[in-house]
Amino acid sequence: MRFIVNKSNIVNKLKIINDPVYGFVKIPFDFIYDLLQHPYFQRLRGIKQLGLTSLVYPGATHNRFQHAVGAMHLMSQAVAVLQSKGIKISEKESEAVHIAILLHDIGHGPFSHVLEHAVVEGISHEEISILFMERLNEEFNGKLSLALEIFKDNYSKKFLHQLVSSQLDMDRLDYLRRDSFFSGVTEGVIGSDRIIKMLHVSGDQLVVESKGIYSIEKFLIARRLMYWQVYLHKTAVVAENMLVNVLRRAKYLLKKNEDIFGTPHLLFFMKHEISLDSFIRDESVLQKFAMLDDCDIMSAIKVWTLHDDFVLSTLSKAIINRDLMKIELRNDAFDVERSSKIKKRIQEEYSLKEDEIDFFVNEKVLENHTYTLTGENINILFSDGTLKDVSEASDILNHDVLGKNVKKSVLIYPKFLKDWAQNL
Amino acid sequence: MRFIVNKSNIVNKLKIINDPVYGFVKIPFDFIYDLLQHPYFQRLRGIKQLGLTSLVYPGATHNRFQHAVGAMHLMSQAVAVLQSKGIKISEKESEAVHIAILLHDIGHGPFSHVLEHAVVEGISHEEISILFMERLNEEFNGKLSLALEIFKDNYSKKFLHQLVSSQLDMDRLDYLRRDSFFSGVTEGVIGSDRIIKMLHVSGDQLVVESKGIYSIEKFLIARRLMYWQVYLHKTAVVAENMLVNVLRRAKYLLKKNEDIFGTPHLLFFMKHEISLDSFIRDESVLQKFAMLDDCDIMSAIKVWTLHDDFVLSTLSKAIINRDLMKIELRNDAFDVERSSKIKKRIQEEYSLKEDEIDFFVNEKVLENHTYTLTGENINILFSDGTLKDVSEASDILNHDVLGKNVKKSVLIYPKFLKDWAQNL
Amino acid sequence: MRFIVNKSNIVNKLKIINDPVYGFVKIPFDFIYDLLQHPYFQRLRGIKQLGLTSLVYPGATHNRFQHAVGAMHLMSQAVAVLQSKGIKISEKESEAVHIAILLHDIGHGPFSHVLEHAVVEGISHEEISILFMERLNEEFNGKLSLALEIFKDNYSKKFLHQLVSSQLDMDRLDYLRRDSFFSGVTEGVIGSDRIIKMLHVSGDQLVVESKGIYSIEKFLIARRLMYWQVYLHKTAVVAENMLVNVLRRAKYLLKKNEDIFGTPHLLFFMKHEISLDSFIRDESVLQKFAMLDDCDIMSAIKVWTLHDDFVLSTLSKAIINRDLMKIELRNDAFDVERSSKIKKRIQEEYSLKEDEIDFFVNEKVLENHTYTLTGENINILFSDGTLKDVSEASDILNHDVLGKNVKKSVLIYPKFLKDWAQNL
Amino acid sequence: MRFIVNKSNIVNKLKIINDPVYGFVKIPFDFIYDLLQHPYFQRLRGIKQLGLTSLVYPGATHNRFQHAVGAMHLMSQAVAVLQSKGIKISEKESEAVHIAILLHDIGHGPFSHVLEHAVVEGISHEEISILFMERLNEEFNGKLSLALEIFKDNYSKKFLHQLVSSQLDMDRLDYLRRDSFFSGVTEGVIGSDRIIKMLHVSGDQLVVESKGIYSIEKFLIARRLMYWQVYLHKTAVVAENMLVNVLRRAKYLLKKNEDIFGTPHLLFFMKHEISLDSFIRDESVLQKFAMLDDCDIMSAIKVWTLHDDFVLSTLSKAIINRDLMKIELRNDAFDVERSSKIKKRIQEEYSLKEDEIDFFVNEKVLENHTYTLTGENINILFSDGTLKDVSEASDILNHDVLGKNVKKSVLIYPKFLKDWAQNL
Repeated sequence: MRFIVNKSNIVNKLKIINDPVYGFVKIPFDFIYDLLQHPYFQRLRGIKQLGLTSLVYPGATHNRFQHAVGAMHLMSQAVAVLQSKGIKISEKESEAVHIAILLHDIGHGPFSHVLEHAVVEGISHEEISILFMERLNEEFNGKLSLALEIFKDNYSKKFLHQLVSSQLDMDRLDYLRRDSFFSGVTEGVIGSDRIIKMLHVSGDQLVVESKGIYSIEKFLIARRLMYWQVYLHKTAVVAENMLVNVLRRAKYLLKKNEDIFGTPHLLFFMKHEISLDSFIRDESVLQKFAMLDDCDIMSAIKVWTLHDDFVLSTLSKAIINRDLMKIELRNDAFDVERSSKIKKRIQEEYSLKEDEIDFFVNEKVLENHTYTLTGENINILFSDGTLKDVSEASDILNHDVLGKNVKKSVLIYPKFLKDWAQNL
Repeated sequence: MRFIVNKSNIVNKLKIINDPVYGFVKIPFDFIYDLLQHPYFQRLRGIKQLGLTSLVYPGATHNRFQHAVGAMHLMSQAVAVLQSKGIKISEKESEAVHIAILLHDIGHGPFSHVLEHAVVEGISHEEISILFMERLNEEFNGKLSLALEIFKDNYSKKFLHQLVSSQLDMDRLDYLRRDSFFSGVTEGVIGSDRIIKMLHVSGDQLVVESKGIYSIEKFLIARRLMYWQVYLHKTAVVAENMLVNVLRRAKYLLKKNEDIFGTPHLLFFMKHEISLDSFIRDESVLQKFAMLDDCDIMSAIKVWTLHDDFVLSTLSKAIINRDLMKIELRNDAFDVERSSKIKKRIQEEYSLKEDEIDFFVNEKVLENHTYTLTGENINILFSDGTLKDVSEASDILNHDVLGKNVKKSVLIYPKFLKDWAQNL
Repeated sequence: MRFIVNKSNIVNKLKIINDPVYGFVKIPFDFIYDLLQHPYFQRLRGIKQLGLTSLVYPGATHNRFQHAVGAMHLMSQAVAVLQSKGIKISEKESEAVHIAILLHDIGHGPFSHVLEHAVVEGISHEEISILFMERLNEEFNGKLSLALEIFKDNYSKKFLHQLVSSQLDMDRLDYLRRDSFFSGVTEGVIGSDRIIKMLHVSGDQLVVESKGIYSIEKFLIARRLMYWQVYLHKTAVVAENMLVNVLRRAKYLLKKNEDIFGTPHLLFFMKHEISLDSFIRDESVLQKFAMLDDCDIMSAIKVWTLHDDFVLSTLSKAIINRDLMKIELRNDAFDVERSSKIKKRIQEEYSLKEDEIDFFVNEKVLENHTYTLTGENINILFSDGTLKDVSEASDILNHDVLGKNVKKSVLIYPKFLKDWAQNL
Repeated sequence: MRFIVNKSNIVNKLKIINDPVYGFVKIPFDFIYDLLQHPYFQRLRGIKQLGLTSLVYPGATHNRFQHAVGAMHLMSQAVAVLQSKGIKISEKESEAVHIAILLHDIGHGPFSHVLEHAVVEGISHEEISILFMERLNEEFNGKLSLALEIFKDNYSKKFLHQLVSSQLDMDRLDYLRRDSFFSGVTEGVIGSDRIIKMLHVSGDQLVVESKGIYSIEKFLIARRLMYWQVYLHKTAVVAENMLVNVLRRAKYLLKKNEDIFGTPHLLFFMKHEISLDSFIRDESVLQKFAMLDDCDIMSAIKVWTLHDDFVLSTLSKAIINRDLMKIELRNDAFDVERSSKIKKRIQEEYSLKEDEIDFFVNEKVLENHTYTLTGENINILFSDGTLKDVSEASDILNHDVLGKNVKKSVLIYPKFLKDWAQNL
């Protein structure tokens, strides 16, 4: 199949990508184009950025491909701004930091956090990202070495890593803006332009000039709102919980050698307990992982709606038809006795075995842990050269409130029990 | 499974949907909410509005669910504008016309036109839409009868049908605006607000007040541009062509009883020649159709990349990895001899049988037939009460140019032959 | 001059206004159209919303005419939302509350706060708004009576007044959004759509449904940012201060019978001490006031640049050429001794008399007093019917921080002293 | 007055301007900053881009200062694009072409075309722009020499002049986009980003790459629409006509030594017939011209509303109160006899002398001459290196239609005659 392999035939490389968020996105290096074309990267087209959140915000069907390209675009702006302020970033470093941001999420699987809990348990997407980058580095004869160093924070110029991963990295700037854009939650829009214009480097730290403080304050408030209004939206939480449960059930049935429909690569990960070690030892594991996207999960669940297993089919139908469970949310813990009653009731109604109850009733704690302003805080650079933590520099932000790790308890159970449960 | 069926438990019906294009979309009738919740409608979440066009415009991942809701939103505006101008539209008619627009595309399958060519050959999505609406009408005890009459243009007030289906229907106003928005092709943005404000009814015809003529001109130009820049974009055309071919190949192999991976409902439609008649005779056919979405196709193609059949796996890999074929486009026909040489060469290179060549080399004619301004033209209402066809009313639009059915020829072949072929 | 007076000739009343912020704005009542056409209202076209702020944000050239129309548009939305929730608002009340918001700022003079300090000292624009409304009420035979009652908060339904004037009135919702739009300070954009959708009435109080709390939080933060970034921007503060000084100087010279250029109506207000009483006693005073707009001030200052008086011409040139003074800003008070040295130096440099120094050196305190959350707070309505103050209802907002009356000291002096003064 | 003259005191030069249209605009050269600060350039803040058009589109209060800065911003983009394609533009040439675009409109007076007809008759704003640039060139010791060469099209690289002045110059790209933005006529929005990305130079000609052809087509259509919907809007035409008439009347009265209010510099231009020669001979003439802006005209007209002369006060009141005359618009000429009757009637009603009639009744021809595609057409560059005129290159645009110089006749007369006149 010559026409697939022989990349040298491509003469006119795509140079510009149309992005609804930023307009034209320029591909800044030829090698970036080669990475964009690679099947590992193309795979990200099949993985929605916000998983099942589109059940709440129908517009939020954007994928990780778009996000990676967008974050790379912001990186181009950031590098240009820093260079214009006299910060030395060589052409090679610039390419490397672009590669690093482009590939920072390449290890994400479908419905990322779900998968981390239910499919490749105990392996983070960052670890898989590194596996992919190392594989690509072999394929491209070491062209990603510097990018890998920066990504792993082993490179001498620490601020380059901070552009890729920190409280003000291009990842966050893109995803907050992009998620606002596609969800239609305009309150979450952040002024990425202004923030990037205000970036500087002081003592090898990425910092923000003091003029930009209002935008940083706004960025933190917007991020917080996005968490409660989008990322931890009740409906998204309940849908994701159901997805974890349905996959857990399928794994359970597979272990009992029940016949379960699925693409071969999905079944591979569901049948075997894959460790990080297996990924490293066996090249074909990563290759199989590279075939997974949202469609493997969704097409399987559709088939499962007709399965004989009551638990599997019930949960599958509820997900596919968006007939989601009831979710209660409170600032403090739920009454243990009441939860027990709900569990008991559902066990009876559905004639469930003891260990099947938790496919239908779950208690969880949601944490908005992204705001803990510890250690790696955003630093503000004043005109006299001094640095201050943003929480000190701002007269508006209240350090205690911002830094607080807000926890909320949720209780999830079938909707038909709602009226009864609420009077318990 | 009480919690799925028992809709009466739903107390707080969702009233507002967040849409990135229009902001808040209000659900105008309780019954509309019930239709939105129905599995038939929820299915549209899995069908991208523009199929493989997101390979060119990565943002264009929006689906038919969003479009249907958006078109319904414009319908609300249009009905309010007409009522404010004294046009009589009863509450019942208003509900019906909202239902009709909401469900106008419910019969679309995944990659619609592909499917119409390669899966349910010879059945249009409009016919399937009517099947779905009739099924829903039974389920909801006749509540969709008036909507069906309007949809089929059997209702006395013809302008209601025109709001659903005509050269200026809410369908087009939404999809042009939405497709521009998500593709990032801002030149295609149309002024739907202004057009709707200028709608009126004269002699039971939907018309546009003369003040709105500039917006109509702009609408027609924008539509034209969207066709060439998005809908008939070379890359989208070539990708769709490859998709038709890969599905044709899979059907061929299935007929030969080869083992082909796929969800049961996808295989059902690929193994059997399903006629409109089968849909009507056998209730379960529509039920199976209702299970199809983009994921069935994409997850199967991913598996086919590993299939033994050279044609199937080659095409599948090219689609999944976005390693698309070369496409040439011209205003006139291609040289027959040259095409023959290309076919011969590919046959040799790939050791193909005679009847396998057209999986790799295709000639097609693209037509921008949507502009034929015949019969059901857009009418402009002047202040003295006279009506004029827009092409007459406008001093800018050239009737001949607009009405012309522009045809372009395309020639598609494997990319590795590009340099050689271009010197033929 | 029949064609000016005889309004009955107007057949086709303008029904829609194009607004860059909201798109189409519908004029909801015929009488509103008559008010829009009245010279008193047309006058607002000549008064910029943000005075000299366009010296900092060049786009901010929008005027009070646009703002009044925009606020009226939001009122239409708010009335419709409340009516849809079952709140009784009669057609007459609706018209009245639209009139009240349309005319709420009609008493503003050019460079409003400047004028209140330097031209019509001691009379607020609200008082003059009432004078205008009463005059219009006479002219239109009592058609504004109910609007006046609502405006003065004498009407039984208090929530109608709150829509016109409160912490969440349509005035604020429009000006924050409009000022963000035109200044280009996108961080200040508020979600007026969402806030209005969440409005309700409980116990005759305008309240916000609890779902809207994020938008309220965002609104308060955005409002705060707009104050420091736009309304109290250093450059705007210094320009306004210079404008007060130049008008003070002109008044002083007029009192000494110096020849000062100006339009007759401007000179009238500068020569005489006009009290609220004079307005009431003498009809022609309001008529003269109605002739004042920004151009009277700016065209006079341009001529004053050539005046013999050093103080007058120096200040005039600096304003016209945007060659503004130095402004220092601190959280605490300035050192008295240093200020004295600066005053002494400028007195020497410019050979000023003792009482002329304060035309060139000023100390002021800026207060962001709009956030004092006292008494008339924004109330959040929970689903169980209870009301909570927003500062209690929110887990994000810190009551102490929000309610704090932030004060900052500014010191203003000629720019040529900058280097010297900073080393004092 | 040291603090005005001594620019060297300015240490922190403003580097970024907030623009509502483009976001941040960077000032690309230090010298550009000096020009921005110059009183000649600051004067443009007082001149509205669209004159009285804000009477129709209230948002359109933007001024020539904003436009010049915006056009300079697009120039930065264009220069960067061309350089990235290998076109040689030296730092010095880049600065010069930025200066040329920044100052291209500096010679505009208030209500530009009005002034050219009624105040400085027979002198174009381009001629005055050159006068200003030459004066600045002296003041800044020859720093504008190259800019002047480019502006006058005397420089060897012709494409630099075309960036400043041609059918696709940065002037047009900015004003079309800016005027759409502020007027709220969103149909007029053009894709300046895409057009600029597609610019190239071929044979010293500014050309557009063939991929950009859709955007050019859209640009031409949008420009055409903007002409009829905004620039030649009936209401704007009638208002401008009345403004010409009121200034003509004031000049007439001044010649008869009547006492007419006005700023000294306005009266200077109205009392004397100023030729281009006078500008060149007498330095103070340009200095006086530099003091003129919209406020001189508007503040004078307000005072004239109280003048004894019937014609002057009648027209002045009508303008100030936006009580505009009736305007009829037709594709062909008006009936001469009917116009005579109207003139006769108005003469009687107003007891006018013969030569006063044309202050109240006017016939004019509007021409949309900007579309004559002659000589300096937009050239499209194809991948094989050939150039084609856009009208040939496009299959959509009809050369005859586009190139046609559309003429429309207007008849203007007092509104009170409307009903009577329409039955003549």
